[in-house]
Amino acid sequence: MEPLDTHISRQYNVELENIRSLVLQMGGLVEQQIDQAITALVQGNQALAETTIVADYKVNNMEVTIDEECTQILARRQPAAGDLRLVLAVIKTITDLERIGDEAEKIARMAVQLAGEERPKNNYREIQSLGNHARWMVHDALDAYARMDTEAAVRVAREDRKLDHEYDGVMRQMVTFMMEDPRTISRVLNIIWAARAIERIGDHARNICEYVIYLVKGKDVRHISLEQMEKEAREAREGE
Amino acid sequence: MEPLDTHISRQYNVELENIRSLVLQMGGLVEQQIDQAITALVQGNQALAETTIVADYKVNNMEVTIDEECTQILARRQPAAGDLRLVLAVIKTITDLERIGDEAEKIARMAVQLAGEERPKNNYREIQSLGNHARWMVHDALDAYARMDTEAAVRVAREDRKLDHEYDGVMRQMVTFMMEDPRTISRVLNIIWAARAIERIGDHARNICEYVIYLVKGKDVRHISLEQMEKEAREAREGE
Repeated sequence: MEPLDTHISRQYNVELENIRSLVLQMGGLVEQQIDQAITALVQGNQALAETTIVADYKVNNMEVTIDEECTQILARRQPAAGDLRLVLAVIKTITDLERIGDEAEKIARMAVQLAGEERPKNNYREIQSLGNHARWMVHDALDAYARMDTEAAVRVAREDRKLDHEYDGVMRQMVTFMMEDPRTISRVLNIIWAARAIERIGDHARNICEYVIYLVKGKDVRHISLEQMEKEAREAREGE
Repeated sequence: MEPLDTHISRQYNVELENIRSLVLQMGGLVEQQIDQAITALVQGNQALAETTIVADYKVNNMEVTIDEECTQILARRQPAAGDLRLVLAVIKTITDLERIGDEAEKIARMAVQLAGEERPKNNYREIQSLGNHARWMVHDALDAYARMDTEAAVRVAREDRKLDHEYDGVMRQMVTFMMEDPRTISRVLNIIWAARAIERIGDHARNICEYVIYLVKGKDVRHISLEQMEKEAREAREGE
């Protein structure tokens, strides 16, 4: 039952708005972490890589803070229907954002390893490109979340498939490098780990999009195909 | 406020008990998936690998079912304090169990790739050992969860460090193989992906243990060191 007292109700709205904006803030921080980690790797900038590794605690702290806010709201406000879905979507979203932060940290660790090594002629162009792609997916996923835009959410999910293809291409290239010159194996493996971390960032961005559709549509779209997800999003739009 | 009507209260208890037992059931399924995936890889059993891949949908379905149960309980029962923590811990635990299922599926996919290849002399002993280790971690994490045993939870978290060391050893061995015979690179990379998936299963088991401590202690122990976690668990025990 909604409280009739407008003050309490307004306060409740403020709380819900607050967690929503905290999620976007956490998302901004995570985007910055990805950006720095990729830049550090591509430019061989060890200092930047180390800064990025250290800064991961900020992402972790935000997860714990937002999680506690959500628990408080559940306990005190006992949200129903759409509000309950919002809080649950936030709890899930921040888990993925935190894991994206972990992947950015891993990329930064690889950047530290690679900073002392010989740089490839193409300046890690493939990692830069893969990294930009994943970073924009996270950006667009958060944008879809902010605007509750299911169509945009489906677009990001579709991008994940492209990212996976791009990743497969990078992997084939890396295997070729290793075969051509086995002395590079250790170094190339570090690039492979970075590429893998980027690919996983795309998976997490896709998860966030699934929560957006869940939020708007009230339907769980995890574990269904892209085609089904597009159908769900279309129906959500038509039902507005 | 607890409802005074015993029937309603009893029904509520049944619901809470039900999600707890569904989590254990899902955990059992996930353990079986890990076991089958590792066996398929080690024995070069392609049929078993394919069965395991197909069966992942069962894990996914359980996640969606339990998630819906939890949402229902939150909406209808508006749980407070310990009950609320239980439901939130379940929501998080099933996410990790689902991801463990995904990792088992990945191992099974590598098993399919490797089934057609020449088998190493040691019969993938290192993968068998790493896999058993991770599987027992999942088992013990679920056991700690079932008995709300924070000490057992900390023990599993400690195991994760050992698993990481074992994984590092396997990785060094794989790099040596590739360097000694670059023709094996593609094949060895598939073993590396399987090893990586097993290492991540350990991370998820550790996450589940953190939720157990959160549940008993009401305190978030994510992102803290093993030593701090041990301290928290000790205090939880002393406070009983």
